[in-house]
Amino acid sequence: MYAITPRTTATRLRERMSYDAEVIDPILDEAWVCHLSFVVDGEPRVLPTLHVRIGDVLYVHGSTGSRPLRGAQPAGIRVSVAVTLIDGLVLARSQFHHSANYRSVVAHGTATVVTDPAEKSAVLTAIVEKIAVGRAADTRPPSPKELAQTSVLRLPLAEVSAKVRAKGVGDDPEDYALPHWAGIVPLRTVAGEPEPDEGISGVPDYLRAVIGVTG
Amino acid sequence: MYAITPRTTATRLRERMSYDAEVIDPILDEAWVCHLSFVVDGEPRVLPTLHVRIGDVLYVHGSTGSRPLRGAQPAGIRVSVAVTLIDGLVLARSQFHHSANYRSVVAHGTATVVTDPAEKSAVLTAIVEKIAVGRAADTRPPSPKELAQTSVLRLPLAEVSAKVRAKGVGDDPEDYALPHWAGIVPLRTVAGEPEPDEGISGVPDYLRAVIGVTG
Repeated sequence: MYAITPRTTATRLRERMSYDAEVIDPILDEAWVCHLSFVVDGEPRVLPTLHVRIGDVLYVHGSTGSRPLRGAQPAGIRVSVAVTLIDGLVLARSQFHHSANYRSVVAHGTATVVTDPAEKSAVLTAIVEKIAVGRAADTRPPSPKELAQTSVLRLPLAEVSAKVRAKGVGDDPEDYALPHWAGIVPLRTVAGEPEPDEGISGVPDYLRAVIGVTG
Repeated sequence: MYAITPRTTATRLRERMSYDAEVIDPILDEAWVCHLSFVVDGEPRVLPTLHVRIGDVLYVHGSTGSRPLRGAQPAGIRVSVAVTLIDGLVLARSQFHHSANYRSVVAHGTATVVTDPAEKSAVLTAIVEKIAVGRAADTRPPSPKELAQTSVLRLPLAEVSAKVRAKGVGDDPEDYALPHWAGIVPLRTVAGEPEPDEGISGVPDYLRAVIGVTG
């Protein structure tokens, strides 16, 4: 269980909220992209980027020149990070009750720049292993120069919550007699056949495992 | 073309940026979910929600009780909204050059609450039609009470940009001799067979068109 704080307490639809690491962590692990929000001169900014969870720390991949990372040195930057997986469209008889099934996580906190090369290297390796277990062993690890060019933000998962909708149509009782179609259109993200780069043929077994089972 | 402003000018990788509505609009239209960022008491917040574009206005679906909408009355709230579609994982020979192919849009501006019931109704209809052309005609339109319970934010697309990576592996020349697999793992979001609600059988033709072609 992660801690419940005012910022992670829902003002509505509380039954969809969870603070359980067993709910939160798999959502973070399945999603390829997160959205990193921060404040610049009092104005909101949001950027998509890659992330990886290691234990109860969320690492967000950045670039040395990007705005949030410039702001993050040395004291850290206040961030809000969201990850969302969409699982289906909910088609109700009423337009009003149309909805989506989804699993989302929002984390708040102070993100700091990772300066330790060993920690940075561990993050890069974890991102690569997130694609497929076994991938890291089939890559060239980063050089000291590449590590210096890599920027990673570290956000401890202290203030974090999940919100999940995973159910059927919720029409009002009197609408069930209407002649309109209602139901779920399931959505999922799938991997296609890998496309080898020039000079490469075939697909390694560890990548075969990704096809059709990715999130 | 949308206008280029300091906030939408990239500090790096400028070649990936676009301000062309022909690039931006299809990304907004294909994505089901956006991430809405705003500032509360100086702190960043980000929430996933549904959106629809009508012309050069982005409408973001909310709920009467939610924080951004409470803050948006009556003068509007400063927001940053991001939409991201992930198209593939880029597996390089070096860990450092691993990346993702994606299409993203970020819009900045002042979002205001839609108060006109006719405009709200048009937004609900547009969200439903976004699922499938023909869907709106097979639904019950919102009642005045439902429209009063529906909250929609209106963000004119004045300050908006797209960022796209759509290419192959970018390893350093000296790494091409390494024995590691490199290439693209394409990703896409697909719709599965619709699951009818209780008392309903079959799937209408307008929904058949969604399966396998959704974004």
